Amino acid sequence: MSNSLDRLFYPDSVAVVGASSDPGKWGFRIFHRLISSGPQAALYPVNRTADSILGYKAYPSLADIPGPVELAVIVVPEGSVPQVMQECVDKRIGVAVVITAGFRETGQEGMRLESEVLRIARSGGVRFVGPNCNGHFNTASSLFTTGPGGVRPGPLALISQSGNFGTYILNRGIEKGTGFSKYVSSGNEADITIEDYLQYLADDAETKVICAYIEGIKDGRRFFKLASHITRKKPVVVMKVGKTAEAARAVLSHTGALAGSDAVHDAVFRQCGVIRVDEVDELLDAAAALVRQPLPRGRRVGIMTSGGGFGVVATDACRRYGLEVPPLMEETIQLMNKYLPPRWPHSNPVDMAGSLEGSYGCLGTLLKADNIDAILAIGSVGFPSDFGDDPGATLRSGPQEYVRMAVEAEVRLVDGLIERVDRHRKPLIVTSPVAGAMSPALLKLRDNGIYAYRTPEEGAKVISYLVRYADYLGLVK
Amino acid sequence: MSNSLDRLFYPDSVAVVGASSDPGKWGFRIFHRLISSGPQAALYPVNRTADSILGYKAYPSLADIPGPVELAVIVVPEGSVPQVMQECVDKRIGVAVVITAGFRETGQEGMRLESEVLRIARSGGVRFVGPNCNGHFNTASSLFTTGPGGVRPGPLALISQSGNFGTYILNRGIEKGTGFSKYVSSGNEADITIEDYLQYLADDAETKVICAYIEGIKDGRRFFKLASHITRKKPVVVMKVGKTAEAARAVLSHTGALAGSDAVHDAVFRQCGVIRVDEVDELLDAAAALVRQPLPRGRRVGIMTSGGGFGVVATDACRRYGLEVPPLMEETIQLMNKYLPPRWPHSNPVDMAGSLEGSYGCLGTLLKADNIDAILAIGSVGFPSDFGDDPGATLRSGPQEYVRMAVEAEVRLVDGLIERVDRHRKPLIVTSPVAGAMSPALLKLRDNGIYAYRTPEEGAKVISYLVRYADYLGLVK
Repeated sequence: MSNSLDRLFYPDSVAVVGASSDPGKWGFRIFHRLISSGPQAALYPVNRTADSILGYKAYPSLADIPGPVELAVIVVPEGSVPQVMQECVDKRIGVAVVITAGFRETGQEGMRLESEVLRIARSGGVRFVGPNCNGHFNTASSLFTTGPGGVRPGPLALISQSGNFGTYILNRGIEKGTGFSKYVSSGNEADITIEDYLQYLADDAETKVICAYIEGIKDGRRFFKLASHITRKKPVVVMKVGKTAEAARAVLSHTGALAGSDAVHDAVFRQCGVIRVDEVDELLDAAAALVRQPLPRGRRVGIMTSGGGFGVVATDACRRYGLEVPPLMEETIQLMNKYLPPRWPHSNPVDMAGSLEGSYGCLGTLLKADNIDAILAIGSVGFPSDFGDDPGATLRSGPQEYVRMAVEAEVRLVDGLIERVDRHRKPLIVTSPVAGAMSPALLKLRDNGIYAYRTPEEGAKVISYLVRYADYLGLVK
Repeated sequence: MSNSLDRLFYPDSVAVVGASSDPGKWGFRIFHRLISSGPQAALYPVNRTADSILGYKAYPSLADIPGPVELAVIVVPEGSVPQVMQECVDKRIGVAVVITAGFRETGQEGMRLESEVLRIARSGGVRFVGPNCNGHFNTASSLFTTGPGGVRPGPLALISQSGNFGTYILNRGIEKGTGFSKYVSSGNEADITIEDYLQYLADDAETKVICAYIEGIKDGRRFFKLASHITRKKPVVVMKVGKTAEAARAVLSHTGALAGSDAVHDAVFRQCGVIRVDEVDELLDAAAALVRQPLPRGRRVGIMTSGGGFGVVATDACRRYGLEVPPLMEETIQLMNKYLPPRWPHSNPVDMAGSLEGSYGCLGTLLKADNIDAILAIGSVGFPSDFGDDPGATLRSGPQEYVRMAVEAEVRLVDGLIERVDRHRKPLIVTSPVAGAMSPALLKLRDNGIYAYRTPEEGAKVISYLVRYADYLGLVK
C-alpha cells in the first residue's frame, strides 16, 4: 500500500482518462489543474475523439499511450468506469483516482457498480482513490489534480471524505496562511480508506500534523490501533460529522458511509489521542498550533494585552474552554513593574497600558513565572485602521510615517518573541484583529511556525487543544 | 438628555481641547479623524501654545473661541480635566466627550478625580461621555471623533464600554460588510450611561438594531424596564463580558465597573428580550440578520446546498443550536423532482446535485412547504478558486469566460431569491465561503439587506437567534 500511495503522490507519469477541452467539464478542470501545477511527470490526456487537449497530444485509450503510466485519473461517465479500470489493469497501472460519482452514494444499483469496479481493480492489483471524489495534491512534487491556486507548501496534510468540503477547508487554510503538504479527497473509499492514508502520512516527512474531515469510519478497530500509535509521535486532528440522526441520514446519501454512534466516536477519539473539533476553523487553528508550539505542562494561562476589553474577553474565553487565569505571584508583579508604566493593573490579564516597549519584558516575565503554563498575547487594533482613508495629501505624511514606524517596531518585537519562546519552552499564542490581512510582523511570526489567530476566543480555544494533547501524552502535572 | 445626545451626534460646532500636531498623540488622532470625516460643523482645535493645528486656527482655551461651541472633546492629561470641565461650564457647552483615562479604573485617587469632574459638570448642566473612552461617530452627520476609515453608513448602532474593543468590533463589521448608524465608546460612564444611549437609540430613525458591548450595568432596574420596552419594537443584541470571577476582576481594573452575577444577567436579558451573545462575530451576525429578515414562526429549517458535505455539517450545526431539520413532505419531494436532476437525494438537506438552475425552484418549494420555517442556503465553493493562478495565456481565456458566466448566473439568481423571500415571509440565510470577499452576487444581496455568512455553522447560529427573538415576541407556534 505504501508503494501505491507513493505513486499516487510522486508519479513519474500521469494519464487523465476523460480529459476534455470543454471548460464546463470536470475532465477539463482536472487536466487543466494538473498541467498548470507543473509536476515533474509525463502527462497524457486520454480522449476518444480529440487529437490534442490544451496543447498536449491526446490518446484514444490508455493502451495507446507509448510509455508506462504510474497514475491514472478517471473522469468518465460512471457506466464506463469498469471498462477504464480494466484498461488500467491491462496497462499495469499501480494506482488510480476515480473522480466519477454515481456509485454507492446513489443506492443499490450504484453499489453494484462500485463492487464491479473494485473486483476488476483487485484482479489486477490496481489500488484506487474514490470513487466520488475531487482529486488530490502533493505540494512537494507540485502535483495537483485539484486544489485552489493559492495553496502554499507547509506542514499540514488533509484527508477529506468530501471533495467540496475538502476544497472549502483548503480555501480557509489559504485565508489563514496555513501551508499544506498533501491532500486527498477520499470519496466513497471503495478501496483505499482513511486508515491507509493515515498510515502513509504518519511516515511522511513533509507532514507534521494530520487533519481529516470524516463522515464515517469503516474499520473502527484498525483506525483505533493505528491512531493510538500515530498520535504518540504526530498529532491527528479530526472533524467528524454526522453527529445527529438527521445528519447521519444526510451522510448516507452523500458518500454512502455509516456515520455510527457519536458517543462511541467521541470516546474512541479521546482514548487514542485524536483531537476532535466541531468546525473548520477549529480544525485549522488547532493543527497550526500543534506544528511547532511547545506543549504546555498545565492549564494556567498568562494573558497579555494592550487593551483592557480584550483582557476581559480573553479571560471569559479561557474559563469557557477549561483553562485557568491565575493571579500573578508577588515576584512576577515586582519584575513586571520594571517594564510597564505605573498604571498597569498589577494583575492577570496584564494590560500593558499601551507600552509596546514593555512587551518584551512582559512576555519574558510571564514565561519565567512558575504558575504560568501558556501565554495568550492579544495584539492591539493596529494604527493603520485608526486613520481616515481620505485625508488631504499634507496630512497623510504624518500618519503614514507613524504607521511605518509602528510596523517596524512590531517586526523587531517578533524576533524577541520567537527567541524567548524557544528558550522557555512554553506555548505563545498570538491573536490579532488583522490576522487575516497578515501584517509584516505576523508574516514573520508565521514563517517561524507561530500562527496568529484572529480573536481572543480562538486563541483560548487553541490553548485548550494544546492542553488536551499534552494531557494525553502525560505532560500535564 | 435627549437634547444632549442630539448635540453629541449632530453638533453645529465642535472644539477639541488638547488637539495636537504630533501624530503620536491622541490629541492628533482625534482632531485628525474629526476634520477628515468632514462634518457640517465649525471645528476648533484648542491648544495652549500652537497658533494652528492641521491647518485650523487654534485657540489657547475654550473661552477664546469667538462663536458658540455645542460639543467639546477633551484630550488633556487627567489632572487638567476638572479645569477644562469648568471652562465647558463657563462657555455653556451642552455636552462633552472625555477621552482621557486615569480615573475610576485606576483606584481610589482616580475615583476622587472622577467625582470632582462629575460635580463640576453637574453644577453647570454639562453632560459628558466617558471618561476613559475613545470617542464616537454618527454616519448620518459625517461626524467622527473615532472609527476606522472604512465605516459605511448602515442600520446598526453600537455602544461599547471599551474603546479598543469597540474599534475592534467596528473593524470586524467593516470586514463583514456591515453598516453603522452611530457609535459611542461609553468608557467609565461617570455621567451618561448605557441606559441613556439605549433610550436615545430606540427613537433613532437611522438605527434598526442596537448592539452593545457591556462590562457592567450600573442601574439594572432601569436597564430592565427600558430594554423590555425597546425590544418590542427594535432588537437589542448584547455581548456582556465578565462572566467569571477572574474576568470580573479584570473588568474592575479596566473600566471600574462591577460585572455582577452572570446568572442574574442571563435571566434578566432573557426576560426583557435582549439577545445575548458570547463573541464579536455572533454580535454582528445576529444583528445583521435582525435588520431585515422576516422572523420565523418555528424552528424547522430547510437546508439547500450544492455539496453533500456542507449539508451534513449544516445539519449537525442546526441540531447543535436547537433547530430541527425535518424530513421533506411527499408533496415537497414531488415538486422538487420537477426542478432537480434525478440523482438529488430526495431529502432534507436538499443537495441540489450541482444544478444552479434548480436553485429557484428548490428555494420556492422550500418556502412553500408547511413544515419549513426558515431556509439555510449554503453557497458553493465558487469556480474562481478551482483554477490554478498561473495558467498560460491561451488556457486562461477558457476558465475566465466560464467564471464570468458563473458570476452572472449567480447575480441573476439573487433577484429571484429576494423576490421570493419577500413574498413568502420566511427568513433566508445565505452562507458562502467567499462571504468575506464579497462577490457581485453577495454584494447585491447585502444591498437588499440580506447579509451572507461565511460558514454553515454561522448560518445555523443566526437562525437560532432569529427563532429566539421570534419566540420572545410570541411568534413561534
